[in-house]
Amino acid sequence: MMSNLTIALDIMGGDYGPRSSLPAAIEAVNSHDNITLILCGNETLIRTELEKLDALQHPRLQIKHCSEVVNNDDKPSTALRCKKDSSMRKALDLVKSGEAQACVSAGNTGALFAMAYCILKMLPGISRPALISSVPTEKPKPVYLLDLGANVTADPETLFDFAVMGSVVAEQSQGIENPTVGLLNIGAEDIKGHEDIKRASELFEQSNALNYIGYCEGTDIFKGKADVIVCDGFVGNIALKTCEGIAKMIIHKLNKTLKKSIFYRAAALLMFPVLKKLYKKMNPDQYNGASLVGLRGIVVKSHGNAKSPAFLAAINEAVREVEKQLPEKIAARFAALKGQQLALDNEENDPLCSPCNK
Amino acid sequence: MMSNLTIALDIMGGDYGPRSSLPAAIEAVNSHDNITLILCGNETLIRTELEKLDALQHPRLQIKHCSEVVNNDDKPSTALRCKKDSSMRKALDLVKSGEAQACVSAGNTGALFAMAYCILKMLPGISRPALISSVPTEKPKPVYLLDLGANVTADPETLFDFAVMGSVVAEQSQGIENPTVGLLNIGAEDIKGHEDIKRASELFEQSNALNYIGYCEGTDIFKGKADVIVCDGFVGNIALKTCEGIAKMIIHKLNKTLKKSIFYRAAALLMFPVLKKLYKKMNPDQYNGASLVGLRGIVVKSHGNAKSPAFLAAINEAVREVEKQLPEKIAARFAALKGQQLALDNEENDPLCSPCNK
Repeated sequence: MMSNLTIALDIMGGDYGPRSSLPAAIEAVNSHDNITLILCGNETLIRTELEKLDALQHPRLQIKHCSEVVNNDDKPSTALRCKKDSSMRKALDLVKSGEAQACVSAGNTGALFAMAYCILKMLPGISRPALISSVPTEKPKPVYLLDLGANVTADPETLFDFAVMGSVVAEQSQGIENPTVGLLNIGAEDIKGHEDIKRASELFEQSNALNYIGYCEGTDIFKGKADVIVCDGFVGNIALKTCEGIAKMIIHKLNKTLKKSIFYRAAALLMFPVLKKLYKKMNPDQYNGASLVGLRGIVVKSHGNAKSPAFLAAINEAVREVEKQLPEKIAARFAALKGQQLALDNEENDPLCSPCNK
Repeated sequence: MMSNLTIALDIMGGDYGPRSSLPAAIEAVNSHDNITLILCGNETLIRTELEKLDALQHPRLQIKHCSEVVNNDDKPSTALRCKKDSSMRKALDLVKSGEAQACVSAGNTGALFAMAYCILKMLPGISRPALISSVPTEKPKPVYLLDLGANVTADPETLFDFAVMGSVVAEQSQGIENPTVGLLNIGAEDIKGHEDIKRASELFEQSNALNYIGYCEGTDIFKGKADVIVCDGFVGNIALKTCEGIAKMIIHKLNKTLKKSIFYRAAALLMFPVLKKLYKKMNPDQYNGASLVGLRGIVVKSHGNAKSPAFLAAINEAVREVEKQLPEKIAARFAALKGQQLALDNEENDPLCSPCNK
């Protein structure tokens, strides 16, 4: 275990803001002796809430006042250029300056992506960051799915970078040697899918850096057919949210049916331990904390509607990534893979990263 | 109820071929007095199987011998140009000639799409056919999702056509007046998604023909937020198959946990009626039978791995569409909407529809 680990939290982000992030922060410092959290947000608000929670004097909770908040409907470019004193921006600035080793935010995904991309910069040789998360499968181990929405499109070369990053994450997080990689498509046959997918498949096949097993369909995600499944951010986001939706519906229908008769309610009571166990295994909260990989720093994105236990899971994910030194491991893999062909700092010239024009 | 309704079945398609399609065909003629089925496929094989099932002499089961089969790995263009005596092709030819009012196939989706497009032709004013299916929601009524994989991409105008067709299907199948339409996207805010999605949203908003309610996320599908949800075929196919995957995993995990202890098994036995009821509600078999809409004829696509009850559901879907005169209803809507601006027969000049070059 590392000592003196500091993580910056965007306290104001997400649907619940401080009501979810502060109890999670308190729980995190109470359960990890070695972490300090920098709470970025409105100081008065944070002080009031901490006082209510009897944690104002905690020596490992520091407050960083920020006068602005990035809203869910802020354009990423506007947030980036014009909200320099926002809690999201400050949390990233702390990672950039080295005062924190990671940051966690439940705020606007597009804004977080744009800010992280322009402030932290990409690791050499990687074109775009990707949002990655583990998803439970029928097997004991999860699958890593990326990109989950950092980019709405991805060309074959970008999908290749995603595959390499996903492999490093699976190795580091699950200890899997030579993880298998699948490419999400609408059929397992070679003829299926659009041109970008076919070209990406060729790239994957030609590379020794990947243990590529071919196309995976939507049904294969949960079978644990591959350790890593790659797709563009539009498709990945829809797939992930669709899963969330159907899981919630099944629970809703089960609850509704159970409530219809006293007999079923009694039976459900008997079943309670097994249903609870299943729910615990499937609970989306424990899988909360998608990571933005490919950057020179650790950024964990909590679900926007994360309540306190889910936000805590995201903080714990950040702690694990700091301990595993994930960005350094990804950088080393790309250095070995691409040698001298490392990309320049494209983001320096990216119009997205130009100054505020408001 | 209509009298003398004839449906052509591609007996050879799908993972199970005649083993799944023939028992379904027998069940269908036994439960509907007014339908005749034309069984397209290898005559010797069909006769042998029908004899085993004691149905060789059924007066409403006719055999149409076909010497070829479209395989799952056949390229759509090859199947179209070179497999003119395949069971899939013959079933479509029977619809084209008017000998059958609809056809059902569990075979290669791409090939079925290409053949249906070139043989049956599009209804005037519609650019591309779409695969549509109902999906259960938390509410009593299902949602209609399209496109589920007939096209891997779709421009904004095509998505608009899909929205109109989806509305007609929801009206006809569920009796919903002025059905609500959503556009599948990675966020509900206006700024989310790629350019084609934003342009499609503008088109939807400007039209009086649609009851457009804006973007829907993956989680909204099962909430029943809209009666119709529109997306391109790549995204729709991944969303549908992902759902199937997670539903199967939940059932798998539940079974596995239940088997671990005799106590849980006893509890599960008590719960059996409620679990069975839930399963029946959620059973993908009953939702089997996606329809290829926009064509001058009814084509129902059964899931490739459909067993007999699922294939029967697809036949029943074809019967309902014939009774509702779905293509006529869709044609009337487009005629009212686009007036004289109806598209020419594009498919006449489409290179996909050129003759066999093998």
